[in-house]
Amino acid sequence: MDEKDSAGTIKRGILQSKRLANKGMVAVAILAAGRGTRMKSQLPKVCHALGGRSLVERVLINCLSIEPSRRLVIIGYQGGLVKTSLKAFDNLEFVEQTEQLGTGHAAQQLLPHLEGFTGDLLVLNGDVPLLRPDTLKLLLETHQAHQNAATLLTANLPNPQGYGRVFCDGQNHLTQIIEDRDCTTAQKQNRRINAGVYCFNWSQLAKVLPQLTADNDQQEYYLTDAVNYLSPVMAVDVEDYQEIIGINDRKQLAAADAILQARVKDKWMTAGVTLIEPNSITIDDTVELEPDTTIEPQTHLRGNTIIRSGCRIGPGSLIENSEIGENVKVLFSVVSDSAIAAHTRVGPYAHLRGHATVGEACRVGNFVELKNVTMGDRTNVAHLSYLGDATLGNQVNIGAGTITANYDGVRKHRTEIGDRTKTGSNSVLVAPLTLGEDVTVAAGSTVTEDVPSDSLVVARARQVVKPGWRLETAPKPSS
Amino acid sequence: MDEKDSAGTIKRGILQSKRLANKGMVAVAILAAGRGTRMKSQLPKVCHALGGRSLVERVLINCLSIEPSRRLVIIGYQGGLVKTSLKAFDNLEFVEQTEQLGTGHAAQQLLPHLEGFTGDLLVLNGDVPLLRPDTLKLLLETHQAHQNAATLLTANLPNPQGYGRVFCDGQNHLTQIIEDRDCTTAQKQNRRINAGVYCFNWSQLAKVLPQLTADNDQQEYYLTDAVNYLSPVMAVDVEDYQEIIGINDRKQLAAADAILQARVKDKWMTAGVTLIEPNSITIDDTVELEPDTTIEPQTHLRGNTIIRSGCRIGPGSLIENSEIGENVKVLFSVVSDSAIAAHTRVGPYAHLRGHATVGEACRVGNFVELKNVTMGDRTNVAHLSYLGDATLGNQVNIGAGTITANYDGVRKHRTEIGDRTKTGSNSVLVAPLTLGEDVTVAAGSTVTEDVPSDSLVVARARQVVKPGWRLETAPKPSS
Amino acid sequence: MDEKDSAGTIKRGILQSKRLANKGMVAVAILAAGRGTRMKSQLPKVCHALGGRSLVERVLINCLSIEPSRRLVIIGYQGGLVKTSLKAFDNLEFVEQTEQLGTGHAAQQLLPHLEGFTGDLLVLNGDVPLLRPDTLKLLLETHQAHQNAATLLTANLPNPQGYGRVFCDGQNHLTQIIEDRDCTTAQKQNRRINAGVYCFNWSQLAKVLPQLTADNDQQEYYLTDAVNYLSPVMAVDVEDYQEIIGINDRKQLAAADAILQARVKDKWMTAGVTLIEPNSITIDDTVELEPDTTIEPQTHLRGNTIIRSGCRIGPGSLIENSEIGENVKVLFSVVSDSAIAAHTRVGPYAHLRGHATVGEACRVGNFVELKNVTMGDRTNVAHLSYLGDATLGNQVNIGAGTITANYDGVRKHRTEIGDRTKTGSNSVLVAPLTLGEDVTVAAGSTVTEDVPSDSLVVARARQVVKPGWRLETAPKPSS
Repeated sequence: MDEKDSAGTIKRGILQSKRLANKGMVAVAILAAGRGTRMKSQLPKVCHALGGRSLVERVLINCLSIEPSRRLVIIGYQGGLVKTSLKAFDNLEFVEQTEQLGTGHAAQQLLPHLEGFTGDLLVLNGDVPLLRPDTLKLLLETHQAHQNAATLLTANLPNPQGYGRVFCDGQNHLTQIIEDRDCTTAQKQNRRINAGVYCFNWSQLAKVLPQLTADNDQQEYYLTDAVNYLSPVMAVDVEDYQEIIGINDRKQLAAADAILQARVKDKWMTAGVTLIEPNSITIDDTVELEPDTTIEPQTHLRGNTIIRSGCRIGPGSLIENSEIGENVKVLFSVVSDSAIAAHTRVGPYAHLRGHATVGEACRVGNFVELKNVTMGDRTNVAHLSYLGDATLGNQVNIGAGTITANYDGVRKHRTEIGDRTKTGSNSVLVAPLTLGEDVTVAAGSTVTEDVPSDSLVVARARQVVKPGWRLETAPKPSS
Repeated sequence: MDEKDSAGTIKRGILQSKRLANKGMVAVAILAAGRGTRMKSQLPKVCHALGGRSLVERVLINCLSIEPSRRLVIIGYQGGLVKTSLKAFDNLEFVEQTEQLGTGHAAQQLLPHLEGFTGDLLVLNGDVPLLRPDTLKLLLETHQAHQNAATLLTANLPNPQGYGRVFCDGQNHLTQIIEDRDCTTAQKQNRRINAGVYCFNWSQLAKVLPQLTADNDQQEYYLTDAVNYLSPVMAVDVEDYQEIIGINDRKQLAAADAILQARVKDKWMTAGVTLIEPNSITIDDTVELEPDTTIEPQTHLRGNTIIRSGCRIGPGSLIENSEIGENVKVLFSVVSDSAIAAHTRVGPYAHLRGHATVGEACRVGNFVELKNVTMGDRTNVAHLSYLGDATLGNQVNIGAGTITANYDGVRKHRTEIGDRTKTGSNSVLVAPLTLGEDVTVAAGSTVTEDVPSDSLVVARARQVVKPGWRLETAPKPSS
Repeated sequence: MDEKDSAGTIKRGILQSKRLANKGMVAVAILAAGRGTRMKSQLPKVCHALGGRSLVERVLINCLSIEPSRRLVIIGYQGGLVKTSLKAFDNLEFVEQTEQLGTGHAAQQLLPHLEGFTGDLLVLNGDVPLLRPDTLKLLLETHQAHQNAATLLTANLPNPQGYGRVFCDGQNHLTQIIEDRDCTTAQKQNRRINAGVYCFNWSQLAKVLPQLTADNDQQEYYLTDAVNYLSPVMAVDVEDYQEIIGINDRKQLAAADAILQARVKDKWMTAGVTLIEPNSITIDDTVELEPDTTIEPQTHLRGNTIIRSGCRIGPGSLIENSEIGENVKVLFSVVSDSAIAAHTRVGPYAHLRGHATVGEACRVGNFVELKNVTMGDRTNVAHLSYLGDATLGNQVNIGAGTITANYDGVRKHRTEIGDRTKTGSNSVLVAPLTLGEDVTVAAGSTVTEDVPSDSLVVARARQVVKPGWRLETAPKPSS
């Protein structure tokens, strides 16, 4: 996965949207140094996956649209692992925060790295993965349009308990941030809270950062305190408060996944895709669907998957990194890294993987595995087959139980099967092997040598009947 | 599917319920001319499926119980397609509405068709599929008992915003319908809204229809306006406001499906069926279940399916148009157009289709496909088999990997297998073929000719061992 | 299942927790005599399963931690069946209640059984399965610490309608229980209700029980009435009101299951397990999971299952009574009564059962069934195989379509396969059979006799080609 791939959809979106008109240079700093103790994990928190991407990957992708000139990831706990996990992203700068002494302390680590930088700094949390690109744009545009020293993102929570409340004047200029515990009953009525996402004029912040103190209960340096030294400071409300939720444990991870899934499904239903029992379906945000396709329950669409119009996928299917043509039916099957052309039916209980490429109007039936196979059009593999490393022509009929013996214990070999060739039940095709066109393989045959076109090949013993024979100790019928 | 089948359950219900006592002639008109732009579909909106039936089919079935003497479907956008989709319903009249200029305009199209008709007209929306038969009966009975000129269905919504409010006097006689935008704050407190479902005395409506004007923002003719010219007009409340929801996009389609599923599951749980994780299960309203059966998660019961008492179906199973006898277990399997007798166990990963008929106390195991097969009692097909176009007796044992080669590339042929016959592993039965009773087929045999009863049949090569042989380039063991 | 097994997890928990300090003798009586008409079932209500255990089993297990000296189960409707269903529990006493005349009448049946008993009696309902052990402990400790005559469990319901309200003084001494219908509007504001779970000083209760009358609308004897004759009586609030819900129909059974599942999943997510789409997953409360394992959607973990750290299980899998080692992947598969060692990959569509034991870093692929098989390390069975009653060494490679013919129609026999042996595609191993080490079985061979190490074994016919052959009536290609 390179960065373009992983964020393909979003990038395209960006190219279509209008560029920020009056944009200065922007650096993004992502706080990714914490352990996340409540995750109870060997993995640092920001490396946990949410819908196919790690939390910190999501944060990086969310800010693609503001086209930051520099991206700094502040790492600490298992920093090497975080770094490695982001190797698909170009031009990241990693800033070490050896001790985790708060958000202000994290920002202080940026000082040597951003010396001389004259633009704005957007500070994001590596564990807040659901911020929409439009929200970040709005924050940045507001910041730049008003030439603020700092602009902070706020949200109106239905239940703001525990959060610091943000008080502004009528022009959205910050007057005060008051911690929940310090709020009067009247102040607690204010549901506008600090989301912990900030945009700073870096030059002004840089002057202030050294003045922060850890003079509080937690003995931490808070970035919020920096705001008090700066002016003008404004607040910008996020439209959907669910964007700002942070992940601290697996329950919050599941909750964030549900929000993300609701977004994705809402998008596709609006675009004309029928989802049956939507809550049982998962769709990665990298997937593309066309209208008038139906996704049945318990179906999972992952990675770079495209499903064309008129399909019926599921129930009980997993499609990963695959392209499904128009009017394809997939029932209780697993398809990964493969392509299926129009009007083909797959399943139940089929497994396509390893670059299987299936032609139009084919039938891939039950208990069939295709691996690294190319099939022409109107070709059927209907039952109990394993085809690996094979090329099949058009209108081929693979009998039930046919197997390509592609592995000799050391190497894999290919099988080539010509148009209209038919294999009998339980036949074995020992690769390397070429069957010509219009070949018929008799049932029960093990074919080890190439067969020319228009031939019948038989490789089995004649039948011998021993009459009057009965299983020695078999229970006799009562009659 | 003919009409009787598609509505079987409901029809039976009707026959058992008492007939409407004082019933006049009723015509039903169904508005089905719209495109439904927000569906983003090639298909007209009313043709979209909801729980196995199209929206307009559901509307037709919902009004079966009022036994309309005439049924008129007003078609427009892709009218031909709507017509074709309803060919299972007898005696429908299709009325063309070439332009879609509102509900009043649609009703005007009825004028030439209902000339001389002296009964009542029930006007239904083709995209409002959840109205209960009892609701329509209540509406009609009220209408007829009071000899109203018009009777309209109303609902009390928790959130009536956007809907026209209905005001009545103490006898439920309509005083006013006020559009949401024209309501005073006080009027907006009224949560009783117009559901858009009407019963008219046709003769009176027919006189009024030509007077409707499109003198409004939308430049449409509203059927609601007709009500103002008629008297007496009454309103009837629907008991469950969810009945009146209309489908305008795929999200509403999913929401309607959830409501429908909740109804169906509620019914079966009340009747003594255990559903585990009910939200993950879907049950078509054509399905019948008996008490003390358990449906496991992620199981889908569709079409004309009956499941008898004492069964355990699922998880992860799809049963379609099939009859499942008592005490059957089906695990992770697909069964369509088939019948399974009592005490049989199926799965995991079995596939029965194309009129498979399985006897009592059988075992159909993993990776087994049965197509157009009849099996006697206590017969086992336990692993990795494809049996197609075959008849098996009682106590037959089909060895793992046994395949009926039923297709010679041109035609399908049958295989007959007598009682107590046993096939060895990986045997192929090349049809047409008859195995008698108590036949034993040796493992690995391809049987091409009929075998008499009490015989052993062998068709395989003798084993040759080449000692001291080793794969040329195989990695040698370290020792 | 014996009692230790069925309650293993909980018992371990108890041993680790501190014993009740000041404990007297406690008898538990469980009301299990009712039919439960609304279940619409052949089975008595308390025998219905909830998350793998019957309701009454759950009640018995819930009170293990208070270590009752005697346990009396009051049976009536199908009492024999209830008794049989509990045979795994030692030292239960069954008390017959031939007529069901109310809770007071049930308690009266205890009189002859508990004659001379001087401890406390805890009365539980057999259809209230979600009471937490800690709640029962709290009830008992409060009862004993205050030397109450009776102590009753109360709950604060969000919607207490229909329940008797409990009124206490400031010290939680009961002042009054008023039935819902007798409450004034003010009294109805009290949401504290009687949960129907009682602790009694038996000697005092025994004196009072004969005085109960059935002088009420239902003509039943109520245990609540006994409370009025006793003093002191206190009330203890349950922390989570969901604990006290009773099961009367299948909908309540489904609701209780959802509560139980939420508890179990909450526990594991808190402990560091990632659940994707948690609502689609079911986990029995007998299952143990290690951190950093991911459970994919539609996965069901049942019975005595342990899943070690680093695994990815699902989607669409069922694991029952099995142990899964570290870093194992299971995709769309069924595993029961089996063990899988670390780093092994299973599925999709694999089926392990009947004590399959799979080594480390193995591959069990699609359409593979393992039954009573022991596999060494780095051994692969990748496609379309049935292995039953077999022992495989290390680094064995089983070719696609390989089948052990373990059943001769009468008995099962074993197959032994040495290290690094390879079987070709569609080979049959006719047991009893021993293949040595480094054996190669040619594709399509049926092996019937033992093969020494370092051998090639071939048992198939040579290939014969008939050129110029074409299916008689096959459609000719157009060219």
